Amino acid sequence: MNKAPFLLAGMITAGSDSGQPRSSRADPDGRPRTGTRLIYRFSRLRAFACYNLAPLMVRQVRLGLIQMRCGPTPDENLDKALQRIREAASDGAQLICLQELFRTQYFPQREDASFFDLAEPVPGPTTRVLCPVAQELGVALAASVFERRAPGIYHNTAVLIDVDGTITGTYRKMHIPDDPYFYEKFYFTPGDLGFQSHTSSVGNIGLLVCWDQWFPEAARLTALRGAQILIYPTAIGWLQGETAEVCQAQHSAWETIQRGHAVANGIFVAAVNRVGVEGKLDFWGQSFVCDPFGRILVKGAADREETLIVECDFTRIEETRRNWPFLRDRRIEAYGGISVRFSDSSQE
Amino acid sequence: MNKAPFLLAGMITAGSDSGQPRSSRADPDGRPRTGTRLIYRFSRLRAFACYNLAPLMVRQVRLGLIQMRCGPTPDENLDKALQRIREAASDGAQLICLQELFRTQYFPQREDASFFDLAEPVPGPTTRVLCPVAQELGVALAASVFERRAPGIYHNTAVLIDVDGTITGTYRKMHIPDDPYFYEKFYFTPGDLGFQSHTSSVGNIGLLVCWDQWFPEAARLTALRGAQILIYPTAIGWLQGETAEVCQAQHSAWETIQRGHAVANGIFVAAVNRVGVEGKLDFWGQSFVCDPFGRILVKGAADREETLIVECDFTRIEETRRNWPFLRDRRIEAYGGISVRFSDSSQE
Repeated sequence: MNKAPFLLAGMITAGSDSGQPRSSRADPDGRPRTGTRLIYRFSRLRAFACYNLAPLMVRQVRLGLIQMRCGPTPDENLDKALQRIREAASDGAQLICLQELFRTQYFPQREDASFFDLAEPVPGPTTRVLCPVAQELGVALAASVFERRAPGIYHNTAVLIDVDGTITGTYRKMHIPDDPYFYEKFYFTPGDLGFQSHTSSVGNIGLLVCWDQWFPEAARLTALRGAQILIYPTAIGWLQGETAEVCQAQHSAWETIQRGHAVANGIFVAAVNRVGVEGKLDFWGQSFVCDPFGRILVKGAADREETLIVECDFTRIEETRRNWPFLRDRRIEAYGGISVRFSDSSQE
Repeated sequence: MNKAPFLLAGMITAGSDSGQPRSSRADPDGRPRTGTRLIYRFSRLRAFACYNLAPLMVRQVRLGLIQMRCGPTPDENLDKALQRIREAASDGAQLICLQELFRTQYFPQREDASFFDLAEPVPGPTTRVLCPVAQELGVALAASVFERRAPGIYHNTAVLIDVDGTITGTYRKMHIPDDPYFYEKFYFTPGDLGFQSHTSSVGNIGLLVCWDQWFPEAARLTALRGAQILIYPTAIGWLQGETAEVCQAQHSAWETIQRGHAVANGIFVAAVNRVGVEGKLDFWGQSFVCDPFGRILVKGAADREETLIVECDFTRIEETRRNWPFLRDRRIEAYGGISVRFSDSSQE
């Protein structure tokens, strides 16, 4: 791995200068982009420097969220994701996030043991494709994989691949849902790696997955591990036939609780959700990123594929926490009951 | 205390029939209200029955939130609160909630030891006024008191007074803020009663106070004790001179995180906030109640006194939790880190 300590002074902003795109494609204003090759190489060196000098926190990252439809053929979904990753990298994204189980349609709509054939080891076929792409493009990737750990033990797993193409973090979905057309308890063994923050050249990254969104404990624990951003690969949708009122309330609750995690922890939050109709489910899209105040910085459409690119200024985390110092005032000696299922005497 | 087990069959809806007002005043449609005295007495009997037969959960309560300005004279603030309590009771409210430190202006804007003279024991002068009023009107009251526990030990305390005029719950604010013009750490010893749900004839009531709003742990622990609603007496405002953008963002974060507590726990949430300008602070008002889906049922004005009355149907709690069963899926064996200040190794 290329060590570049001489780049120390300028490296705490990860990736390319001032977010300048690395691609030679025309930018949205139609102006040609120049100097691609040079900036690209410089960017990779800086990222490496960051990776090798852990005491310095990453101050800023350009995030890319890829909101896709998924078709029935896993390899075609993978090809589409790779194409979108290249485009997002061209647009300057430094950490690119894929939606939950992006290689397949949402198979947990029914319980069918043959679907375990879709699972794969980690590292395995998907990471063997993604890691070299991350290295080639000099970007980090957050990807969701249906993990086959052992015969009979499968997980809903997220991996963080750093800009050098190594897997720097693995998270196994801790909270597993099970409700009509989301039969995940059939497929996914609950994670046993706990809640973590993964140190990388693009920041301290907290990986969580979908149903984890509803649990303040998951957000808090990941933030207390030092995460600067929580990333939730997601597959949430409406069951067809629900009323518009219920649909709207469900979506609002989903967005609200995650904005609440951002506020409670003074941290960025990103949800990248699939879109489109599969079977009985109409996936919401509406991927979003919010800042440590819970303000939505960018939000995807409800009805189409979209790649969202947004700058996350991690210096906003300390600024926010200094002014509303919730972490200072936690009553940790009084929180033991969080580890209890329920206080049964209360139902007297 | 009057026991009335023969009222069993009809008593699980607390208070008056179908929310019918007890007052003989004209209702908002101008129709005269009749039968006041009879309904009033019946209502009290039913409430007593509920109180004495704990296994039955209260299914519905009509909540009243009293959003006030406070003047410099504590007794005038108390008189105003009493008048509003009577009006809310006349309008059918069964549980009436007062804002944080409703007897005084928000004295923690500066540190002045003479303000400890405002503190009083609990039970004490304020509860000696409120308890008989609760009994007379047959309503429950949630009230905030600056508690003098011992020389040098003062608390920001909330009490729940049941319809029979007894104090059925006491909570001492656990999370104490301290930021410019909110110098509460000078005045208030952190609470030592923990997070509780108070069984009463109007339901299982969770009392929390203001700054607790920002801590998901407080909401979760109170919900796990069986609370059907979280009530937050509040005194939050803008420091004059802040930009409109910051003001808007602060208010949105405040509302969002509390709606998030409702969603995470499948529970009702009520915040009753003061209004008006005092010194350098411009209090937000905008008291609100939201349902277990985080939907705002009623919301107060930002610039004037208001009493909000809203029906809370507690059967919505189980309905919500059955469909989105978050409490089922908590990974309690993995939450131990909640009781840690911070995972320092993460800041390597």
